[in-house]
Amino acid sequence: MSVVTVTPNPALDLTYTVERLEPGTVHRIGTVHSRPGGKGLNVARVLHALDVPVTVTGLVGGAEGTALRAGVGELGIADAFVAADIQTRRTVNIVDQSSGDATLFNEPGPRVSADQWAVLADRVSALATAGEVVVVSGSLPPGVDPDMLGDLVRAISAAGAPAVVDVSGDVLPAVVSAAPYVVKPNAEELRAATGIGDPRSAARALTEAGGCVVVASLGPDGLLAVTGDASWTARLAKPLTGNPTGAGDSVVAALSAGILAGRSWPDMLRDACALSAATVRAPVAGEYDADAYARLKPAVEIHEVTL
Amino acid sequence: MSVVTVTPNPALDLTYTVERLEPGTVHRIGTVHSRPGGKGLNVARVLHALDVPVTVTGLVGGAEGTALRAGVGELGIADAFVAADIQTRRTVNIVDQSSGDATLFNEPGPRVSADQWAVLADRVSALATAGEVVVVSGSLPPGVDPDMLGDLVRAISAAGAPAVVDVSGDVLPAVVSAAPYVVKPNAEELRAATGIGDPRSAARALTEAGGCVVVASLGPDGLLAVTGDASWTARLAKPLTGNPTGAGDSVVAALSAGILAGRSWPDMLRDACALSAATVRAPVAGEYDADAYARLKPAVEIHEVTL
Repeated sequence: MSVVTVTPNPALDLTYTVERLEPGTVHRIGTVHSRPGGKGLNVARVLHALDVPVTVTGLVGGAEGTALRAGVGELGIADAFVAADIQTRRTVNIVDQSSGDATLFNEPGPRVSADQWAVLADRVSALATAGEVVVVSGSLPPGVDPDMLGDLVRAISAAGAPAVVDVSGDVLPAVVSAAPYVVKPNAEELRAATGIGDPRSAARALTEAGGCVVVASLGPDGLLAVTGDASWTARLAKPLTGNPTGAGDSVVAALSAGILAGRSWPDMLRDACALSAATVRAPVAGEYDADAYARLKPAVEIHEVTL
Repeated sequence: MSVVTVTPNPALDLTYTVERLEPGTVHRIGTVHSRPGGKGLNVARVLHALDVPVTVTGLVGGAEGTALRAGVGELGIADAFVAADIQTRRTVNIVDQSSGDATLFNEPGPRVSADQWAVLADRVSALATAGEVVVVSGSLPPGVDPDMLGDLVRAISAAGAPAVVDVSGDVLPAVVSAAPYVVKPNAEELRAATGIGDPRSAARALTEAGGCVVVASLGPDGLLAVTGDASWTARLAKPLTGNPTGAGDSVVAALSAGILAGRSWPDMLRDACALSAATVRAPVAGEYDADAYARLKPAVEIHEVTL
């Protein structure tokens, strides 16, 4: 039993550290850090650090695809990527040491054909045997529309695996109509998907529309989970400040690990809230502060709420 | 007969166009442009556009090396690169459409061993048969010191080919001591190499030190050529404004084409000055405005000067 993470639009992430970002000038970079990127891969990195067995898949190709897979191998994560005649994209992250600011440049990703997407869907169906949990997380590449992602979610459910999906607000309605097990929007994605400003009302509307559990990440307000039967909030009395990049990926990692282990929703929310906060304390997406995670778990306040 | 350009530290150049560069935010890139980079490759691109036969070489490896060679192939330029167990570097150029500013991030390049450099030197010696002109242009990668570049220049001369060298001021003394045919410093490099602030005095000192021709590019003041026998200036009465990136590469391209064709120094300087100005009018390094080149040639003012 393991978690399978699907990254529809994976990337090779490059990080350049500069003393100070000065627009209009030439910056000479000391050391270049590169690593597999895309939200599904960030989720997998967290799961791997939690000692949860994890397999990654998606479509990769070209030189950056080769480098991405090499990075997956170095991490010791099981690689089920599908080789395709595409050029995997890059992201470039400029870290300014003087301000701490991160400035990102995200390439759009290669155009994926319907045939290539079908090959990935077959691979995901084959991996999604009963007992596995399948995460689908991140942006869609050009050529893949929300309905194609909805079909993938249906295929996962048909294969007997619960699907945990984290996608942007414009893609969310098509995903919800495919009835995944869990969706994990943030406040803005909830609003974009439902047109409802209040997160509780929006989450309830989404649950009722799709019959799926909605776990909304609300920044310093913590998490809100809405199932068909009950709803909970999970938060820290004192929210941590830091780098929010990757906090949502840690929520998805904790939920998928908890579903795999058969934990209760309150227990999963406690893990997810603490792991997310421990991620905010780490400088890089896909990493977390293990000491903070252990320390914060008992500090998470869980409340059952009536919507 | 052709020109061979050696790029000691080649790169895959990536260009990202953004509406506005906003530090600390995420930028989604529309179309990614990638192309072979490094000054020797820019020189080759200009020569190729001038219909001068050109062969490119250097050490390349890894995923970016593969992409770089694919780009050379697409340009239709003869590829004599040496495959090595290195990871070719990238440069990232952020073009801000609101300001027109270019913000560059240059990776340092892979460390090159003495053995790898020796393999490149053998390749260059084999290419540098009598009748060829060999250009060496750009930065040195980690592991290659100025004396190793000096040895390469000696090997080119020993093979019977004139060497045209464009390197930074700190590398220039070791190159000049190896007696290339021409060096092409700018004003700052002249000063860094000689400690002399006046470009004419500095160029004369460099010529006397190495017995080589010095062609200095002095921005809006045009070109200054100092040979053992005579000196000339070449300039436009009205310097053009624009993007100076690549102007020096066009000077090197015009000089190497002229040496190959056996043209006189005044004729070569006229071509070099006009081509450099036509490059300033083009938006991308390694490209020039062909109409401007033809129009500007008669407008170049050549003067023999006494230093």
